[in-house]
Amino acid sequence: MNLNFASDNTGPVHPKIMAAMVEANAGAAMPYGNDPWMPQVTERIRTIFDWPEAEVLLVATGTGANALALAGLVQPWDSILCHRIAHIEEDECGAPEFFTGGAKLVLIDGAQGRIGADALTAQISRTGGSVHNVQKGALSLTNVTEAGTLYSLDQLAELTTMARDAGFATHLDGARFANACAALDCSAADMVRGFDMVSFGGTKNGCMGVEAIVMRDPALHWEMQLRRKRGAQLWSKHRFLSSQMLAYLEDDLWLDTARAANAAGQRLAKGLADIGAVLEWEPGANLLFARLPRAAHERARAAAKYYVIEEAETPLCRFVCDYTKTDAEVDGLLDVMAG
Amino acid sequence: MNLNFASDNTGPVHPKIMAAMVEANAGAAMPYGNDPWMPQVTERIRTIFDWPEAEVLLVATGTGANALALAGLVQPWDSILCHRIAHIEEDECGAPEFFTGGAKLVLIDGAQGRIGADALTAQISRTGGSVHNVQKGALSLTNVTEAGTLYSLDQLAELTTMARDAGFATHLDGARFANACAALDCSAADMVRGFDMVSFGGTKNGCMGVEAIVMRDPALHWEMQLRRKRGAQLWSKHRFLSSQMLAYLEDDLWLDTARAANAAGQRLAKGLADIGAVLEWEPGANLLFARLPRAAHERARAAAKYYVIEEAETPLCRFVCDYTKTDAEVDGLLDVMAG
Amino acid sequence: MNLNFASDNTGPVHPKIMAAMVEANAGAAMPYGNDPWMPQVTERIRTIFDWPEAEVLLVATGTGANALALAGLVQPWDSILCHRIAHIEEDECGAPEFFTGGAKLVLIDGAQGRIGADALTAQISRTGGSVHNVQKGALSLTNVTEAGTLYSLDQLAELTTMARDAGFATHLDGARFANACAALDCSAADMVRGFDMVSFGGTKNGCMGVEAIVMRDPALHWEMQLRRKRGAQLWSKHRFLSSQMLAYLEDDLWLDTARAANAAGQRLAKGLADIGAVLEWEPGANLLFARLPRAAHERARAAAKYYVIEEAETPLCRFVCDYTKTDAEVDGLLDVMAG
Amino acid sequence: MNLNFASDNTGPVHPKIMAAMVEANAGAAMPYGNDPWMPQVTERIRTIFDWPEAEVLLVATGTGANALALAGLVQPWDSILCHRIAHIEEDECGAPEFFTGGAKLVLIDGAQGRIGADALTAQISRTGGSVHNVQKGALSLTNVTEAGTLYSLDQLAELTTMARDAGFATHLDGARFANACAALDCSAADMVRGFDMVSFGGTKNGCMGVEAIVMRDPALHWEMQLRRKRGAQLWSKHRFLSSQMLAYLEDDLWLDTARAANAAGQRLAKGLADIGAVLEWEPGANLLFARLPRAAHERARAAAKYYVIEEAETPLCRFVCDYTKTDAEVDGLLDVMAG
Repeated sequence: MNLNFASDNTGPVHPKIMAAMVEANAGAAMPYGNDPWMPQVTERIRTIFDWPEAEVLLVATGTGANALALAGLVQPWDSILCHRIAHIEEDECGAPEFFTGGAKLVLIDGAQGRIGADALTAQISRTGGSVHNVQKGALSLTNVTEAGTLYSLDQLAELTTMARDAGFATHLDGARFANACAALDCSAADMVRGFDMVSFGGTKNGCMGVEAIVMRDPALHWEMQLRRKRGAQLWSKHRFLSSQMLAYLEDDLWLDTARAANAAGQRLAKGLADIGAVLEWEPGANLLFARLPRAAHERARAAAKYYVIEEAETPLCRFVCDYTKTDAEVDGLLDVMAG
Repeated sequence: MNLNFASDNTGPVHPKIMAAMVEANAGAAMPYGNDPWMPQVTERIRTIFDWPEAEVLLVATGTGANALALAGLVQPWDSILCHRIAHIEEDECGAPEFFTGGAKLVLIDGAQGRIGADALTAQISRTGGSVHNVQKGALSLTNVTEAGTLYSLDQLAELTTMARDAGFATHLDGARFANACAALDCSAADMVRGFDMVSFGGTKNGCMGVEAIVMRDPALHWEMQLRRKRGAQLWSKHRFLSSQMLAYLEDDLWLDTARAANAAGQRLAKGLADIGAVLEWEPGANLLFARLPRAAHERARAAAKYYVIEEAETPLCRFVCDYTKTDAEVDGLLDVMAG
Repeated sequence: MNLNFASDNTGPVHPKIMAAMVEANAGAAMPYGNDPWMPQVTERIRTIFDWPEAEVLLVATGTGANALALAGLVQPWDSILCHRIAHIEEDECGAPEFFTGGAKLVLIDGAQGRIGADALTAQISRTGGSVHNVQKGALSLTNVTEAGTLYSLDQLAELTTMARDAGFATHLDGARFANACAALDCSAADMVRGFDMVSFGGTKNGCMGVEAIVMRDPALHWEMQLRRKRGAQLWSKHRFLSSQMLAYLEDDLWLDTARAANAAGQRLAKGLADIGAVLEWEPGANLLFARLPRAAHERARAAAKYYVIEEAETPLCRFVCDYTKTDAEVDGLLDVMAG
Repeated sequence: MNLNFASDNTGPVHPKIMAAMVEANAGAAMPYGNDPWMPQVTERIRTIFDWPEAEVLLVATGTGANALALAGLVQPWDSILCHRIAHIEEDECGAPEFFTGGAKLVLIDGAQGRIGADALTAQISRTGGSVHNVQKGALSLTNVTEAGTLYSLDQLAELTTMARDAGFATHLDGARFANACAALDCSAADMVRGFDMVSFGGTKNGCMGVEAIVMRDPALHWEMQLRRKRGAQLWSKHRFLSSQMLAYLEDDLWLDTARAANAAGQRLAKGLADIGAVLEWEPGANLLFARLPRAAHERARAAAKYYVIEEAETPLCRFVCDYTKTDAEVDGLLDVMAG
């Protein structure tokens, strides 16, 4: 039985997406985004985002999407406000600094992996000023957060409004965009309302490797194309990015896979609580953190894959359910832990 | 009929490679290169390169492979010697400058798209010196060259020896590595003998999007891994890079596809000469440049895809045959031109 | 009367230093550090640091010294541990990020503007790890700290030993190196014992604009020279940096001016306490922060120059005494405040 | 006797300039450009350039002025067109690449160290295009050229008009701006007419170390201030840059020193021809290149300082006359050579 809960990127490509890629593999197609699938991708994202002028660029990695998006929003001498545990801070080996030419990530603490309004107000008031300081740049939020929790739409609206009013651009790291939409039962348009640029993820949720950089302002398109090429993220056989993304969007497949992953995540959360684990944060989707009873951990560690974030008597562990996780698999993990 | 001669990257993925990717899409696999296919890729490349200690990193684009490889070989204040029409100079939008932190590409002219020994000697003697100058860095050669010609093994040996003796590292841009091996009827080990780092291409020759950065010196491995991650080139669902590359290497598929592409290219070269076109350089593999009779061009431009490099009465045109090009397709193009 | 307490860099050049520069202005001198004064500077610093192999590079700004020194110690994907209020974090507009190619400043809190041993231990244990994280780089300490306090020699030894044992390089921001030596009544050799690279300041303490980058390991010399040139910090008429620095070091002038500045700072600190101001941190040298009674601030703000760090009923204000501040000037400021 | 003809930066600071710096060294002055001299510098340059809205930033090195100016004009993915022997290409160790974030210097050949109109036309037509290429950025001209020759005002007008019409910004490297004005007997306003940004040099012509970055468009001012600070080029005791520059501009001292240097240069050129040396290019000001008779070189090399650019039977040598060179010194050198 598949007891791999290490990450949603350990999961396979969804059969419909793989089939679309195989289907796209017929004859010649022009490279570098000039394939017939790409205009449909752009059109589809404009529609679901309700951003009629938006432009879309596809890349193969989430780090690429984030780093390029931020580079398009800030200057090298600017700040990027983010949560202390944001992926762009903790898990990208400094890619945002590399692609922006050295912008400074300014970290904000906050309960449940969320930036609070008061903390953001305080940081905004401290940012910028004289020529000796880094300047106002962008606010980057992540939803689903890296703690597995959710920002509500009201919270997103409050934070993005504050940032914009203070002169910051706004970026959404949507590596788990679909999971957040599914969990909040909101539309993509609701989710992106307060943002200037979005990393719209596909890889974690059933794709092979494709993320969309979606920019609300089409004036940025050409510069972003140059940044993508120069950043070595422009695919020659681009049809395999665009057909992939198109299949992901088709018939709301992206929401179906997210709902499946979230359901598994919520089942696991409940089950973990039942066996005496303590959930570190409020799991909102398919990613969760729990302090396991020592005995449960001892039993599970050999049989299942998951990450230990902090070694302790009751170790802090991370579990992620990809879209394929069945009830049987979740229960299988819980059974192992229960002994 | 498929009259797309615009590039080898307009071609499809080889069925065997696509099948391998579909096969790899079963259940969970650990991400970021920790999949079971990757060690086999490394082992296979070590064998065919006869570099028993080599380390291999996979990325999805040729620009990524080149830019990361060069960044691992030179300092920001170093020079990179290359031909004036090298891909790293002309077609990567400054990616080498970006990834190296601003190293300077120093251009060397040379007939047939090849750097000559005398020109290299002269440039080496002018490079480096005082603190005011950029310093000695790397020599980057391309085989098949961007002119579609070939360096012989003797020429590679002469140039790389000169560079190394003068304190330069050596890099091979092998976007068409397989085509060069097939054309020279040499082994991969013969090809790489004088190099420190190789961009071993797959995408142009039947893969979907995978290139191997092969470093002779394993001491560079960790730094290169960090550069790849920071450069946003590390795939999470990495199994689709490694299974892809493994299928490409299996049973010398890489040589089979290259031979097919080269045969089509040579047939096209002969045919173009027969209809009165003038070959600009000596076509060695699957890439060729010819000045077309005006009438031939007028007839062909609507029916076929190829790039016009220089508009003129007899325009300079570029044709590339990917591995799928059949005799019928080549003859079809020639027939259109012949009118 | 001179009631400018805004910064030590508002003060003039010491007459002996200016005289030395005028004296050096005779006839021709070779440029770029090849003047006759520079070898004497290197020799003198080797002696006072007791670093017999050290190499020295002169630049004109403190930001340049810090940014180049750090760039010589870390890779772009490394971390630089420093206090939250370090000059490199707060007052250099991202110059360290620029010169290092995007290294990440990792901030450590700590009372009195000092990093504590426990906080450093905790941060070290969290730094580095997998390819997704920024790696271990350097610890940068500042003495006199940006809070105006001092690290004792024991504290420096403890922190630098911990850092080195964990694989970090060590950097001292010595913008007020002389003030720290004078305050601790220690030798320069004592101060630098645990460090790999030192920014040895002159500008704030009576020079016109000169800072020495002192590297313990001479193997870094050539690379650092290239970084200095490429960073546009290499003076052509370099004799005016080296003669300046030599005069600063001559007969311990650097300690004399520091002692004068510190004495004024301590007199001011005592006086401020006497008029009811609350010192924010323990002033160890010539830089101090105090919360002024509102009335005192109202009286002083028009008559004197100093920075308000935080507006409040009792505003937090910063005062710096340069080496020229007389008892009369200090008392003059206090008299104004007392009303 | 002073037979140092190695560079104009081997010369001393002009007594009037040194006196102004000594005079500025009285009491306190606000740092970072907030001194009372700086507004006068800006006003004076606006007047002589006839650029009423221009903004001025002072730095200490010519490389700093050039690199920052170019960074303000181009994007990292842009090209900078310049002559093959431009200082920014040959003598700045890649500083333009560093400060621009990796822009590409595109080299144009041309007789007499000058870019010709035809060559510029050809290069412009080859620059930019698709996302794979570096884009149009800036044209950088140098007057006096690095060959010691001059662009006439007509030539400057022709080249800058062509560049601007094609969408390039225009930069003048004016390290020897004064020498060029003096030689062409034109005003500063005439010289800068076609440019967007000028590096207005002082150091080579009697200053200690000061160069003005003059930007025609004041909208760039704030960004350029941030670039200067982040580039570690912002002086704290800035009064010594501004008082220095002000004295240089006072009563046209800058033209007096340039005329003196040029006169010495022309006397030397004539004298060299008289003793059988062959001038490599047409010397227009104070910088000249000549192939010396072997015997003359043998006699001079021990007695005088000058650079050998190319070793040969009749070596190519570079001579520069700074503003202090007297007839006696020039004749002294010639006498040594004549034997």
